Amino acid sequence: MSLIVQKFGGTSVGSIARIEQVAEKVAKFRREGHDVVVVVSAMSGETNRLIALAHEVQERPVPREMDALISTGEQVTTALLSMALDKRGVKAKSYTGSQVRILTDNAHTKARIREIDNQRLHAGLEEGYVLVVAGFQGVDEHGNITTLGRGGSDTTAVALAAALKADECQIYTDVDGVYTTDPRVVDGARRLDRITFEEMLEMASMGSKVLQIRAVEFAGKYQVPLRVLHSFEEGPGTLITLEDADQMETPTIAGIAFNRDEAKLTVVGVPDMPGVAYKILGPIGEANIEVDVIVQNAGDDGHTDFSFTVSRTDLPRAEDVLKDVATSINAREVRSDRKIAKVSVVGVGMRSHAGVASQMFAALADVGVNIQMITTSEIKISVIIEEKYLELAVRALHSSFGLDREPQDESAA
Amino acid sequence: MSLIVQKFGGTSVGSIARIEQVAEKVAKFRREGHDVVVVVSAMSGETNRLIALAHEVQERPVPREMDALISTGEQVTTALLSMALDKRGVKAKSYTGSQVRILTDNAHTKARIREIDNQRLHAGLEEGYVLVVAGFQGVDEHGNITTLGRGGSDTTAVALAAALKADECQIYTDVDGVYTTDPRVVDGARRLDRITFEEMLEMASMGSKVLQIRAVEFAGKYQVPLRVLHSFEEGPGTLITLEDADQMETPTIAGIAFNRDEAKLTVVGVPDMPGVAYKILGPIGEANIEVDVIVQNAGDDGHTDFSFTVSRTDLPRAEDVLKDVATSINAREVRSDRKIAKVSVVGVGMRSHAGVASQMFAALADVGVNIQMITTSEIKISVIIEEKYLELAVRALHSSFGLDREPQDESAA
Repeated sequence: MSLIVQKFGGTSVGSIARIEQVAEKVAKFRREGHDVVVVVSAMSGETNRLIALAHEVQERPVPREMDALISTGEQVTTALLSMALDKRGVKAKSYTGSQVRILTDNAHTKARIREIDNQRLHAGLEEGYVLVVAGFQGVDEHGNITTLGRGGSDTTAVALAAALKADECQIYTDVDGVYTTDPRVVDGARRLDRITFEEMLEMASMGSKVLQIRAVEFAGKYQVPLRVLHSFEEGPGTLITLEDADQMETPTIAGIAFNRDEAKLTVVGVPDMPGVAYKILGPIGEANIEVDVIVQNAGDDGHTDFSFTVSRTDLPRAEDVLKDVATSINAREVRSDRKIAKVSVVGVGMRSHAGVASQMFAALADVGVNIQMITTSEIKISVIIEEKYLELAVRALHSSFGLDREPQDESAA
Repeated sequence: MSLIVQKFGGTSVGSIARIEQVAEKVAKFRREGHDVVVVVSAMSGETNRLIALAHEVQERPVPREMDALISTGEQVTTALLSMALDKRGVKAKSYTGSQVRILTDNAHTKARIREIDNQRLHAGLEEGYVLVVAGFQGVDEHGNITTLGRGGSDTTAVALAAALKADECQIYTDVDGVYTTDPRVVDGARRLDRITFEEMLEMASMGSKVLQIRAVEFAGKYQVPLRVLHSFEEGPGTLITLEDADQMETPTIAGIAFNRDEAKLTVVGVPDMPGVAYKILGPIGEANIEVDVIVQNAGDDGHTDFSFTVSRTDLPRAEDVLKDVATSINAREVRSDRKIAKVSVVGVGMRSHAGVASQMFAALADVGVNIQMITTSEIKISVIIEEKYLELAVRALHSSFGLDREPQDESAA
């Protein structure tokens, strides 16, 4: 018998019929003898309905009251799911964030969890209840209701799993696991049985948005085994774990991630002197624009080109900021390009395997894709390419790294 | 500067436009320098929507979960009203029953208030906030969310006023005060400036359902001055207070109440011996049927007729119960009549004025209304009459006791 935390998102509980299906699934686990804590989101559409009400009243609603308002959405789901479990003869109890006591800071609408009181939960479990906890919400030290921001329910689930030392945290979604790449782009994309937290972070931050990145970080930090599963289809899903030292042969590459939401800015002919990077990126940061890839290459003539990428919606604002900057640092000009995309190969295995970069560049060269920028990290190599070559590049890399096939070591294990 | 508790019901906050109107009214009081605590119900329709969801899941929903579910309705209103106040430059904070700490027993869906922690509220008031509190809900000693049952928001308001020693508790409704009788029956019905708690209880229990009887009892017990006002029309409303010793000339009669929801049962030819009343009413009570008027008259022949009234919906069940009872006590027969109504004259003044009863009976005789049953209390005399004479009787009494005219002492004061 183990302790499992299960999280069901808004679409999984989007109607009474869906809630009944979720109850059926939870009841099954309970009957198998597991202790179960369920974390639920608001029924899909409910949060938006409440936000619309707030905006009818105020353009920028008071954050404290916004939290009091939208936290009701999850509370409704917890009560309904508890009833649906009770109907199936499964003892269940609903909990708000405040009732559990999920203590957060007081940053309303984007609070961070500080501490979870696991006493009440343990007591509930010992009495034989399935505990149904409202995701996405907590309470500050003064008893004010807070919310964790959109997608915070994943974080709630992971935090509860950590606090309760659960054996597994299962995140139910509308996909049956994490894939080697987007199946809509590559036919041969394959569900991974396992992926490490680090790999998942690199995958998640680039479009394979199965899980909130924050939840994955949290899970990694507290070493909570995390599993992504389909809400209404059977299957093992993908287990996200620490790197497994026992596994002799780690596959080199876990997957190919990509992101279309990139735009490139280049400040051309920048006098090559200390502090230039700061002079360019300082004002960008102050304007609350997030920068992704940054590349600088010094030239021979005492000048350099400085390039970076931002999300496409931020491009016009970034251009405005750079106009003034370019003048003040005597740069020649500012160029921008919104028709680019980023492709990355991700895998903890590349730490111990040389030649991943050269294999990547060779694969791209084979299909005639020109590389505009390159950045590398411990477990990821990313390139910026022309957007129109994106699918071609992803397919070439997926095939080149053998991701279409079941990995050798897994079939041998 | 005084401290006022204001309560707005579901229709008063039934839309964003209505909530804005309420905010306007609250803001006006605040700007006049008063400390204000506002108690709100769920937006009209919301509680029913939530109950319907619960019933989609379970025929008889788990009471604890029912409370968790429906308490969200008031929470939504508190947040929206707080935003609407903030928009008007009035600092406001929402509170759930749990946040105030309105401690109740654990009788889910019909909990009773035990204690209110006024520290947090006082702190909020001292910081200059208008406090917007969710009506109808509380929390038990284990932190479970409870609700006070339908109409519990009035009780919340009165309880808060008592706990905070407020100068007045204002209940905003869809009528502009308490009337001498139903204006739909008597054209000359007049709004009362004042009425005592006792009179209000007698009026409320018989159809003038402006206020929850429970709230009036509570207000009387803790001597909270209670005022009934119209939500969206200006006016002084009706103040419900203790009997005013300073007021030299208390009007004899405050009003004429009536109730159509009465049905009469008579057990005819009951052997006149001790314990008969219990033998008849015991089984009725066990069947959860509430009895209103009870009359017994002993005859000469060792037999008596025992009559009582119940609400019309309970009549068939009461008849079933009495069939068995009648046999077991050797009564001759059971008769029932659902075409009756009750008319009462109510007034604390009748304590010191003789002749109210005879004036009442004379007025009814004058218009040819036959009296079937009579009961009296300290401040009320009720008669059961044929339903078809109800309006006639009410008008005759209203006129006979001079309720069409402004009372002398009020104009002199």
